[in-house]
Amino acid sequence: MLESGQLVMLLNSKGKRYFISAKEGQVMHSNEGVLDLDAVREAGWGHQVCTHKGHPFTVLRPTLYDLIKSVKRRTQIIYPKEIGYIVMKLGIGPGCRIVEAGCGSGGLTTALAWLVGDTGKVYTYERREEFFTLCRENLERIGLAHRVEQFHHDIAQGFHSHGADALFLDVREPCDYIQHIPAAVVPGAPIGFLLPTTNQVQELLKALEHGPFCQVEVLEIFLRHYKPVPERLRPEDRMVAHTGFLVFARTYSELEQQKPEESIA
Amino acid sequence: MLESGQLVMLLNSKGKRYFISAKEGQVMHSNEGVLDLDAVREAGWGHQVCTHKGHPFTVLRPTLYDLIKSVKRRTQIIYPKEIGYIVMKLGIGPGCRIVEAGCGSGGLTTALAWLVGDTGKVYTYERREEFFTLCRENLERIGLAHRVEQFHHDIAQGFHSHGADALFLDVREPCDYIQHIPAAVVPGAPIGFLLPTTNQVQELLKALEHGPFCQVEVLEIFLRHYKPVPERLRPEDRMVAHTGFLVFARTYSELEQQKPEESIA
Amino acid sequence: MLESGQLVMLLNSKGKRYFISAKEGQVMHSNEGVLDLDAVREAGWGHQVCTHKGHPFTVLRPTLYDLIKSVKRRTQIIYPKEIGYIVMKLGIGPGCRIVEAGCGSGGLTTALAWLVGDTGKVYTYERREEFFTLCRENLERIGLAHRVEQFHHDIAQGFHSHGADALFLDVREPCDYIQHIPAAVVPGAPIGFLLPTTNQVQELLKALEHGPFCQVEVLEIFLRHYKPVPERLRPEDRMVAHTGFLVFARTYSELEQQKPEESIA
Amino acid sequence: MLESGQLVMLLNSKGKRYFISAKEGQVMHSNEGVLDLDAVREAGWGHQVCTHKGHPFTVLRPTLYDLIKSVKRRTQIIYPKEIGYIVMKLGIGPGCRIVEAGCGSGGLTTALAWLVGDTGKVYTYERREEFFTLCRENLERIGLAHRVEQFHHDIAQGFHSHGADALFLDVREPCDYIQHIPAAVVPGAPIGFLLPTTNQVQELLKALEHGPFCQVEVLEIFLRHYKPVPERLRPEDRMVAHTGFLVFARTYSELEQQKPEESIA
Repeated sequence: MLESGQLVMLLNSKGKRYFISAKEGQVMHSNEGVLDLDAVREAGWGHQVCTHKGHPFTVLRPTLYDLIKSVKRRTQIIYPKEIGYIVMKLGIGPGCRIVEAGCGSGGLTTALAWLVGDTGKVYTYERREEFFTLCRENLERIGLAHRVEQFHHDIAQGFHSHGADALFLDVREPCDYIQHIPAAVVPGAPIGFLLPTTNQVQELLKALEHGPFCQVEVLEIFLRHYKPVPERLRPEDRMVAHTGFLVFARTYSELEQQKPEESIA
Repeated sequence: MLESGQLVMLLNSKGKRYFISAKEGQVMHSNEGVLDLDAVREAGWGHQVCTHKGHPFTVLRPTLYDLIKSVKRRTQIIYPKEIGYIVMKLGIGPGCRIVEAGCGSGGLTTALAWLVGDTGKVYTYERREEFFTLCRENLERIGLAHRVEQFHHDIAQGFHSHGADALFLDVREPCDYIQHIPAAVVPGAPIGFLLPTTNQVQELLKALEHGPFCQVEVLEIFLRHYKPVPERLRPEDRMVAHTGFLVFARTYSELEQQKPEESIA
Repeated sequence: MLESGQLVMLLNSKGKRYFISAKEGQVMHSNEGVLDLDAVREAGWGHQVCTHKGHPFTVLRPTLYDLIKSVKRRTQIIYPKEIGYIVMKLGIGPGCRIVEAGCGSGGLTTALAWLVGDTGKVYTYERREEFFTLCRENLERIGLAHRVEQFHHDIAQGFHSHGADALFLDVREPCDYIQHIPAAVVPGAPIGFLLPTTNQVQELLKALEHGPFCQVEVLEIFLRHYKPVPERLRPEDRMVAHTGFLVFARTYSELEQQKPEESIA
Repeated sequence: MLESGQLVMLLNSKGKRYFISAKEGQVMHSNEGVLDLDAVREAGWGHQVCTHKGHPFTVLRPTLYDLIKSVKRRTQIIYPKEIGYIVMKLGIGPGCRIVEAGCGSGGLTTALAWLVGDTGKVYTYERREEFFTLCRENLERIGLAHRVEQFHHDIAQGFHSHGADALFLDVREPCDYIQHIPAAVVPGAPIGFLLPTTNQVQELLKALEHGPFCQVEVLEIFLRHYKPVPERLRPEDRMVAHTGFLVFARTYSELEQQKPEESIA
């Protein structure tokens, strides 16, 4: 018996995917009829349940990858290959408090909310009404909205939250906002940026040199799929050539500028 | 005040890193003197504490990336670029129960233990005594051992654990073991493999075709660093060309073989 | 005044490209009227000439890249990124005699014919009538057919030509033919292969181990374009992920197996 | 019997390579004794000849790749993967006249000289005495110096040569020189640049926008080697991550700015 509120992925017979938080006593409406979510919880992972019209759905535990791919988008979203690395570099995990701006369609927000668990919190900023709403809808559909505090707010005036464990900026002009970062995170916190152009990376690097930031890194990630045919194993013909450049840093830690001889009190 | 047992990264004045679980009433011994871990907890993130000899250490929250890099290794370890993607594809998160074999030095084990939180569990199998011990030491040093159940056991005889949410194999001959996978995980669970050679990938693909597996994917991930100099932004001269091929699949879900016309009961 | 027979690329006002060998006293027929090729030769590079109907064509010297792209194809062709490297590794240049099989649509044949000049020769084998003809048409259209001797012949029976400086095989089952390679080239000659799958590469490597071959190399080449916008310089969104694996070797040279102490007569 | 003046690669019993133009009646001096170059020519490809002390040398036809690798360098040289593509894009071949600056150690110069043949010519500019001399020595050693006209000259004052078929700049500040390019080449000629940093690419793109240039392209090339072991085929562990960005363009052709309606005289 799955817990009430458990997020499930329901596949219909044509492979179409539905994501829903299976709450006690509730139902899901679909083109193929009404599905009793208590029956879904009782069936459990890998089993089938039928709608009142007799159409079967398979109950699967969605992976984070499935959820990110399920995000309804009106922007280019960050790909799982970048999100996975961001998670490593920012130290995201259960109980984390993380700031993100802007949320866009909510692809990265989804991953962060998934990973911080019920004991953590994601603070996400978005000044564009349209995306603020879209992100909330995406989070609500998959039952992760309660882990996210959304601010419909321009971060040019600073962040409302303080003392976060990490921060990620996916905005066009990050240089306009980096002055507000130290107040938003704990000292020494890891921060990250996604930027599509080399010009933006150069400008950000210049700005980071003047601020209280250290351990700056710039990188990009490529992923190449193969055709999974054992007798003719070969890469796919085409691949994504660019999502964006990732920039990582840490907010200033006092130690970095100490001379060795000064380090003994 | 940091909680008792909180994992901290301590940097000395030369940038050397120490990882320790800061438990109430305990101390850390270093070449630079004894450090009071209660003082560390009181100082908090980004602040400095001195040893009894007056040497300062900065208290930082380690990222998952820091921890993976801190793993003492006697094997080639999986890189963060692969681990991040594995986490996405296997749906790792708070509360997850995941099976892994073999653990090697414990790089991936560390990441899994970090991400499942105190409500999840990692079951890891390793038949080589040397690595079994090394992995445990690595996990204990960073205070994550309680989230991991280690089996010193050859999986040729099957897995001890059942009903896991996901499974990852980093072994030389995965084909010898895949028959045991369905019994170890919930139906429909995502599974993954890391394999260095194209021959191994071909053999695994062949074996997966006969078993109850679907949604097979093969891929590889590249990461290229840049020199973070704003006036002369350019990629580094050299990069890692290969860690291994990643293979993902799901254990068989009944739905996959249904014909559309048969799907209505 | 361009020489008679000079290969020219003629661009019409819409950017459409025509390739022709501008021979003395001849004309070119196009949808936009008849173009006097003596007028073309007189106008010279970068200048315009009009048809009898008054439509202008610009006279340009085609690059090898232009010619390869102009090849009418019914097969996947080798890309310029591979051809360029093949040329380096096989030592193609003026006066070279090179064997190629199969010619396919003639993309590589075009490059080889261009580079060996009038003092060299390309011997190309193709057993499929359709491609044999297509390749000849492609070569004739650009005026390079006289540098190519085409064989409509299955190389399972061996090569007709002997003592070539280099050899390239772009065939599905190269292992069936490598026994005939030593008789076709001078001792020590560089040879190359293009193969789409890892399985084919493995089989070829196995076969090369038994034959008189040394200095074996396997590699692949990637090319990523950037959007040429100075204010927003960034890679293109997508790229070719795979054409084929390139394998290079040299036919056996006696020296390779000599022991140092035996090398003094 | 090899022709007098034929370039040969001589391998001694330890695999050391010597490159020499085998001229009638001449000898080569080596640590292992004097080698009669007429005997070398008589022996021919793949055969052995001994020095007066009895040490054997194998006579091989060097590939262009061998020659580029043989260049004695005091600068980072362009790799064969880039040179091969440059050759395609610039349309280098027998009879071509091509301008290059700066020549550096002469890696690209070697390839150009090889490919233009005795009927073509390479005009190369280098203002640094040291490299001017090094390049000449490299060319003389392999017998290609007669195809190259070297200018010890700063191209800030323009090029001495006119009407070349193509031009390549491998200099730190190409923007300072591009105004002189149109006078150096035939109208419509293809031109290329190699630049290590994204900042340089941006500046060049900006400068090209103002000049008489069109069909601008920016790209980079990656090459990954595999370990050639048939039972364990896998990529090498490390690879070159960056040589430089390649930029290509054509000098202005009148047609490009014509409106379709104006194109009929």
